[in-house]
Amino acid sequence: MSARVSLRSRVSSFSHFPLPGPYNQAVREPLLQTAAIITVSDGCFQGTRVDGSGPLLARLLTESGFAVVSVVVVPDEIPTIAAALRTSAETASLVVTTGGTGLAPRDVTPEATMEVCTRTVPGLSELMRLEGIKQTPMASLSRGICGTVGQTLILNLPGSPAGAVESLRTVLSLVPHALDLLGGKTEHSKPLES
Amino acid sequence: MSARVSLRSRVSSFSHFPLPGPYNQAVREPLLQTAAIITVSDGCFQGTRVDGSGPLLARLLTESGFAVVSVVVVPDEIPTIAAALRTSAETASLVVTTGGTGLAPRDVTPEATMEVCTRTVPGLSELMRLEGIKQTPMASLSRGICGTVGQTLILNLPGSPAGAVESLRTVLSLVPHALDLLGGKTEHSKPLES
Amino acid sequence: MSARVSLRSRVSSFSHFPLPGPYNQAVREPLLQTAAIITVSDGCFQGTRVDGSGPLLARLLTESGFAVVSVVVVPDEIPTIAAALRTSAETASLVVTTGGTGLAPRDVTPEATMEVCTRTVPGLSELMRLEGIKQTPMASLSRGICGTVGQTLILNLPGSPAGAVESLRTVLSLVPHALDLLGGKTEHSKPLES
Repeated sequence: MSARVSLRSRVSSFSHFPLPGPYNQAVREPLLQTAAIITVSDGCFQGTRVDGSGPLLARLLTESGFAVVSVVVVPDEIPTIAAALRTSAETASLVVTTGGTGLAPRDVTPEATMEVCTRTVPGLSELMRLEGIKQTPMASLSRGICGTVGQTLILNLPGSPAGAVESLRTVLSLVPHALDLLGGKTEHSKPLES
Repeated sequence: MSARVSLRSRVSSFSHFPLPGPYNQAVREPLLQTAAIITVSDGCFQGTRVDGSGPLLARLLTESGFAVVSVVVVPDEIPTIAAALRTSAETASLVVTTGGTGLAPRDVTPEATMEVCTRTVPGLSELMRLEGIKQTPMASLSRGICGTVGQTLILNLPGSPAGAVESLRTVLSLVPHALDLLGGKTEHSKPLES
Repeated sequence: MSARVSLRSRVSSFSHFPLPGPYNQAVREPLLQTAAIITVSDGCFQGTRVDGSGPLLARLLTESGFAVVSVVVVPDEIPTIAAALRTSAETASLVVTTGGTGLAPRDVTPEATMEVCTRTVPGLSELMRLEGIKQTPMASLSRGICGTVGQTLILNLPGSPAGAVESLRTVLSLVPHALDLLGGKTEHSKPLES
């Protein structure tokens, strides 16, 4: 079974969520941005561990006005994670991962992400850790990186449900502007001024 | 037209500025350190956009006791930016760039800088973002890096005039010591103590 | 004389320290974690400079419950530093370096460390600088990185005795958990819950 096949077989499509209310319409009126979630965990992939983080991230993203178009669970293997990142980035503007950012021998999500991204956004990971250490000093051990591939933003979040949700919350208000910039809606395209 | 030719044709030489006053003499008495400025912007290069940041940086550096020896405007192309960095580093101890550090598809200044630098100084970029987010959370989206090539220090600053000036101000007091170290004036050269 | 030979000839074995008291037993009861110290300094290697940082780090690590199994002094050369890192990582769970993280032309400890490590832990270096700038703004010029090779954690500390000790103190409480994770003692190995 190839990595790609094993990925696809576990994709659950969450597209076309109903909008939960006026709050989200205020955030992004005309068109929903798309998001994908990748849970990186040997245990969750093998079914010996329940994925607590993925569903929480799906709810937070949906409540924040994103259309969650895919949710994937992959094992802690660089080629498989990288393949999931590339596949997800084809359909989603925002890809978040949870898990595999720590120091355990098989934690390699940042390495897979580095392989896929053409540009890194170090300030987002710095901010997650800066806010994270206000909750727990262990946040400094999170090796997550953020970066871009094509017009997609990739965020590595910690594996624990609380860590994943809090880290995403920390940067979530920056994401719409980041996606606008990635999509080419920049101030630079304004005509010459004064 | 080669990248190098297009660069040189737009170089304005600012060398041998008169010293503006006793303030700067206090900062660096005997010899002026040299600085070069590179504005990275398709719009400024094509003349459809006015370069607001470059002149502000030139003034701040001059007021801080630097001899600004070159000011260059280049488009958002890695080879061109890299060539400008290498050329500027041949004549200046400090090279600052403004622009191209964001998430727009053509923002590639950090990638060009990484190509040129042999060593990075992550603490300077971290400090710029750490202070920057006190002004605007968008500072976390600045992907700028800092590094060295030969005896030259390179600083990537944001593209907006306010962001560029504030980021430079944040690290400016560290630059004289950094350049002393780069130039080989280290405490390590002191003789054996006690 | 090969780099490896010159290293080994300067190794002082500090293994089997007596435990200094109940404080350390509280930190790590059953088995001592092993630590190695590498002082990177041309002057110390040549004997023209006294190594002030190495002995202070050895004392701090011992007082914190580590068995310091090797103390090495190497010159500022990437291949020699890299060889010392690899040799030290074979016998120690924690390897700390002091020196070579600044901007002097021969400061290349981070580059050697990057060559050896398969994964980086950026949050630890960020934390050292974040706390360091509360003591001195010059902490932002420390280019140190942290990373892992095999089951060993490597920390680059500044060269000054005060900077080295304070930086290590900043992250020391995180190290036991980091080494547990590196050694495979992870929460992920717990059985399926709820």
